[in-house]
Amino acid sequence: MKVLVTGAAGFLGGHVVSGLADDGFEVTGFDTKPNPGLPIHWIDGDLRDRNAVRRALAGQDAVCHLGAIGDVYLAGEKPWLAAEVNVVGSANIADAALAADAKVVYASTWEVYGEPQYQPIDEDHPCRPDHPYNITKLAGESLLLAADKLHGLPVTALRVGTAYGSGLRPNSVFRIFIDRAKAGEPITIQGDGLQGRQFTHASDIARAFSLACGSELHGLALNTVSERMVSIKELAEATVARYPTELTFGDPRPGDVPSARVSAEQIGRSLGWKAATPFEVGLEALMVTANK
Amino acid sequence: MKVLVTGAAGFLGGHVVSGLADDGFEVTGFDTKPNPGLPIHWIDGDLRDRNAVRRALAGQDAVCHLGAIGDVYLAGEKPWLAAEVNVVGSANIADAALAADAKVVYASTWEVYGEPQYQPIDEDHPCRPDHPYNITKLAGESLLLAADKLHGLPVTALRVGTAYGSGLRPNSVFRIFIDRAKAGEPITIQGDGLQGRQFTHASDIARAFSLACGSELHGLALNTVSERMVSIKELAEATVARYPTELTFGDPRPGDVPSARVSAEQIGRSLGWKAATPFEVGLEALMVTANK
Repeated sequence: MKVLVTGAAGFLGGHVVSGLADDGFEVTGFDTKPNPGLPIHWIDGDLRDRNAVRRALAGQDAVCHLGAIGDVYLAGEKPWLAAEVNVVGSANIADAALAADAKVVYASTWEVYGEPQYQPIDEDHPCRPDHPYNITKLAGESLLLAADKLHGLPVTALRVGTAYGSGLRPNSVFRIFIDRAKAGEPITIQGDGLQGRQFTHASDIARAFSLACGSELHGLALNTVSERMVSIKELAEATVARYPTELTFGDPRPGDVPSARVSAEQIGRSLGWKAATPFEVGLEALMVTANK
Repeated sequence: MKVLVTGAAGFLGGHVVSGLADDGFEVTGFDTKPNPGLPIHWIDGDLRDRNAVRRALAGQDAVCHLGAIGDVYLAGEKPWLAAEVNVVGSANIADAALAADAKVVYASTWEVYGEPQYQPIDEDHPCRPDHPYNITKLAGESLLLAADKLHGLPVTALRVGTAYGSGLRPNSVFRIFIDRAKAGEPITIQGDGLQGRQFTHASDIARAFSLACGSELHGLALNTVSERMVSIKELAEATVARYPTELTFGDPRPGDVPSARVSAEQIGRSLGWKAATPFEVGLEALMVTANK
């Protein structure tokens, strides 16, 4: 089965490429950035270019659509760019997938829900995104699921948890903590550090993409998060335990997304997926890599 | 006060231009289409062109942003175009309005709600749009309201009801019924015709734009609909009563939006707005015009 992975040069895209290749899929990468060294076929292209997306999808059986302005800060600075890539880009994917008769697995995010109305948040929870990042990610998801409903394009959206693993962006909380601790600088927690995240290892998320590619299931958005909730304070303490540095507390950062427990029950039932990497194991692997 | 009206060549845009001019605003039109003859300053421009939008908004005090792919059928055929104009275009308006220090009044739609969870639908009702038209209109609204929240851009979104009045599109139910009846052809109701709409006269909607431009209120999305619910059957019967033709019934059309009662209570409280044109009066005016 031939699968195109958009955003293949990105952090999560790289994990999805590896996971799909390990599972026997024939993978082609698509990105505006050059191939970072993955042993796969590669297409340089921009999601905003409808013809380029059509050409890339021709002959493919599926597309894992991870290409996006995924950096929340960049989306906040340039909402029009987030709209172009995340919304128009996803409309272009729907168009090309319909033409190629290919299924779509879309990388959505747990952040589409916005302020929790109840917890744990299941997939029926209303979506009230309030930032250019989650607004445009939800619009991309909705356009793809509308193409499923209106035109029979098979689409599964994975609302993934906060991902971590090798290759993380330098502005992720993991990299900030580990990089500072390695340099012997104190780690500063903004606020009390009690806000939690269901950090989900990129290899687990990659497995969900493989499962969705191989499944007949479609027309759904599925929470794809680890059950384990880890607070920022726990993460900082685990980092401090390993490196000779100290922990300090600063003022809370305005606009930080508060804790919200998200349920992964539905994806367990429908795809048999469950996050398998214990947080301690994933964090240890990240610190070992960072030490090199 | 100087106001830019995007989509000024459109049906509703024309009514908003007239209403603003009558209320003493200094109006400039902005559209990809040429000025249809409105006695105002005019800028030919495309919402997708960020620099053109910036130039158009420079020196303005407010923008009434009605420019959109507002034809539901066209949005369904070309979702990428709806994404470009309705989402990227609205992001460009937010960008330019921030640069110009201008407030924004956005033409949203009651259709953002999707399937009703409860009725009457107030502004706290969840939004679950399921078609490229309402998905992209909601994303545009959300991006503008996010700019209000994150950057202090004053934004009011008017979720307008199904508008009618002079200059309606040929594919609107009013024009279809009246044009067929005038030609002596039978009017066909698809389904039982009992689904209702809160048809709202364009002049009433225009008044809401004027009120919002002149108000300090911002940061809200407000339902802007007539309280009166009229069924398709009532509309057809009123048309048949005037022209020598007959009424027939056909199969229901798949995908027709079902009836949903929408509350206009909040805009009554916050802007003092209420639809003032009785349906019979508005319909009579439309039929008189159509007779010419």
